[in-house]
Amino acid sequence: MNIVVAQSGGPTCAINASLLGVFRHATKYDEIETIYGSVNGIEGLISNNLVNLSEIICTDDDVELIRQTPSTVLGSCRYKLPDPTKDIKVYEDIVSTMRAHDIHAFFYIGGNDSMDTVMKLDRYFKLNGIDIVAIGIPKTIDNDLPETDHTPGFGSAAKYVATTTQEIIRDSSVYSVPSVTIIEIMGRDTGWLTASSAVLRANGETAPHLIYLPEKPFSTKKFLDDVREVQKTHRAVIVAVSEGIELDMAELGEEFQSGKTDNFGHKYLAGIGKALEKLVTKEIGCKVRSIELNVMQRCSSHLSSKRDISEAERIGGSAVKAALKGISGEMMVFYRVANHPYNVRIDHVSVSLVANHVKYFPTEWITESGNNVTDEAVEYCLPLIQGEQNIRYKNGIPQHYVLQQELPHK
Amino acid sequence: MNIVVAQSGGPTCAINASLLGVFRHATKYDEIETIYGSVNGIEGLISNNLVNLSEIICTDDDVELIRQTPSTVLGSCRYKLPDPTKDIKVYEDIVSTMRAHDIHAFFYIGGNDSMDTVMKLDRYFKLNGIDIVAIGIPKTIDNDLPETDHTPGFGSAAKYVATTTQEIIRDSSVYSVPSVTIIEIMGRDTGWLTASSAVLRANGETAPHLIYLPEKPFSTKKFLDDVREVQKTHRAVIVAVSEGIELDMAELGEEFQSGKTDNFGHKYLAGIGKALEKLVTKEIGCKVRSIELNVMQRCSSHLSSKRDISEAERIGGSAVKAALKGISGEMMVFYRVANHPYNVRIDHVSVSLVANHVKYFPTEWITESGNNVTDEAVEYCLPLIQGEQNIRYKNGIPQHYVLQQELPHK
Repeated sequence: MNIVVAQSGGPTCAINASLLGVFRHATKYDEIETIYGSVNGIEGLISNNLVNLSEIICTDDDVELIRQTPSTVLGSCRYKLPDPTKDIKVYEDIVSTMRAHDIHAFFYIGGNDSMDTVMKLDRYFKLNGIDIVAIGIPKTIDNDLPETDHTPGFGSAAKYVATTTQEIIRDSSVYSVPSVTIIEIMGRDTGWLTASSAVLRANGETAPHLIYLPEKPFSTKKFLDDVREVQKTHRAVIVAVSEGIELDMAELGEEFQSGKTDNFGHKYLAGIGKALEKLVTKEIGCKVRSIELNVMQRCSSHLSSKRDISEAERIGGSAVKAALKGISGEMMVFYRVANHPYNVRIDHVSVSLVANHVKYFPTEWITESGNNVTDEAVEYCLPLIQGEQNIRYKNGIPQHYVLQQELPHK
Repeated sequence: MNIVVAQSGGPTCAINASLLGVFRHATKYDEIETIYGSVNGIEGLISNNLVNLSEIICTDDDVELIRQTPSTVLGSCRYKLPDPTKDIKVYEDIVSTMRAHDIHAFFYIGGNDSMDTVMKLDRYFKLNGIDIVAIGIPKTIDNDLPETDHTPGFGSAAKYVATTTQEIIRDSSVYSVPSVTIIEIMGRDTGWLTASSAVLRANGETAPHLIYLPEKPFSTKKFLDDVREVQKTHRAVIVAVSEGIELDMAELGEEFQSGKTDNFGHKYLAGIGKALEKLVTKEIGCKVRSIELNVMQRCSSHLSSKRDISEAERIGGSAVKAALKGISGEMMVFYRVANHPYNVRIDHVSVSLVANHVKYFPTEWITESGNNVTDEAVEYCLPLIQGEQNIRYKNGIPQHYVLQQELPHK
């Protein structure tokens, strides 16, 4: 039999490691002949665009380079499957590609939306008595998938956030004048990644002094009070804020309300960091800077967490093992067995418990003041950022693996 | 005799290495007794806020940690001295501090403004027959100081820009839909750092496809044409743009001209990247993202260029040697002796040739089309980004050296 693996959703530093996990584990089994990769996630299966991974991952060098390349070597997509009981055309296309390649197992590395795809495919296969299994492999820097202790990709993103925040603290603290630095961190719905900036406490940092997550309502008035309070004891105030927090426009002054919200609140143009920067400039008047960590927090593989990369590869391999047992419609998960020493066990749960659900940052890990996180958050994150990858450089730049030249714009 | 060293201007990854260079070289001379550090640049000499560096840099561990800590361990300032022939009060304060500590040599690590300070102090000392020498040690990520082949700090910033741009290329290329990604890079007046993104060619990258520097006038119409042209052959278009380019507002449509420039051109709120993002969204309509590399490009010491750090330390040491010869009013410079193998010689030139002058990116290294740089730029930059520092991590985060707890806001 043959199998196929695909990558979906937003890029991370660990999604290629999970691809390697599937590929390298699958090559160990005699019953698996060809390991295909689907280009651009499920789109490759719909349009019959597969590659034979054995022809691509040929040497130990290839493995090393793919492991240290961020983003998805097979490309990605944001494709949502229709209801399999209503619109079956696309399912027939997928099955047709799979039949043509004698594929009996499908592995989808992705986040919430990708698990929806796994769930629907599994349902379609079962409804129609098709002997193909579908397994989900978690991936997202947001860490917002239920049932699993954490998601591959999160650890590397958290390591980037912590390291970069610490460097920004140094950068922001050089002048003798008071300043406020606002760091905008990814996470539209959940505050996991923003909270990870608190791990700096383990190394004796007192900043970030204020941490705001989308799990708590945000008040601009309270925010300004918080900043003024921290200024009493710190010259350089560092704020970590989740991109997902929402400003209460009613709370803002007239300038921001008079139909001119585009000047201020325009979330999609300039982001929450810029908005808060403008607010502090106007209301407090000191030196202010906002910094958006942007896509760097999900693609800075030169700074990956070794544990994250290794776990991502391991969970990919476990997915193959599960598929060979006939498991289908399940997502692989981590259970944290212990923190000292850190230890996880891999298992799987019904993908229906994950798809279209969100795991929020625990509100009991947010301090009563609503502007910081407790030490439980630090304890939780710290093990996930441990270890550094041995990155190969060429000409002073990390070497990347590129599957193919990008296609011209049709 | 005693000496004093200070750090000034914007932070870099290499300015602490130059401090170490001065300190470690000075400890080799019997005639130098105490090596002072001035807190917050020249401000520490004005207000008599000095530290004894021997009491701070005690162990090899201290040296290692300071070398890998970004920004300035002694703090910085943006203080411009008055004309020494007109207002002498501040000069008297500085000399008073120096006299009180038996200081006979002053080393100032900084950029253009700091060289102005060195020049004025030297003039004041000479005018008044004061036996103190003043030496400048170059530092700036902008690489815009005349007379020197390059400036310490630039190589590490260029390595960050190249590495991060490459990661952004991977991140931007995953989807099957056309996209434009705009990377905004530091450099208000000069395009050195933006141009450094072209080193990726050495590793086979074709992106960034378009590179715009402030040394050439920027036309929004031409920019849109350029993007459309690249889209014919590339699905994911990558643009590197210097923060210093200026939009010709007259060229823009009515929407951007009708007194509402704040919505679009507001350089200080959202930057040129956001402005171009909005322009592409409006005029081309594909997926667009802008990314500001912000302060990360000057403080990401976890990714420093080993050559940059080592040269920064070396030039600091050479400054001590020059001072002991009685040299004053000079800035240390690099001359590039050869590129293959790379080799530099250290010398010094009159600081008057540097202070208040700017070294622009050579226009002959900009392609005729005005939207890219030639291979000469790549040849120039490549040697400066070579090698990686061996960074010490603790709890998964690089270890930093922090001189003192920051002072409360007065």
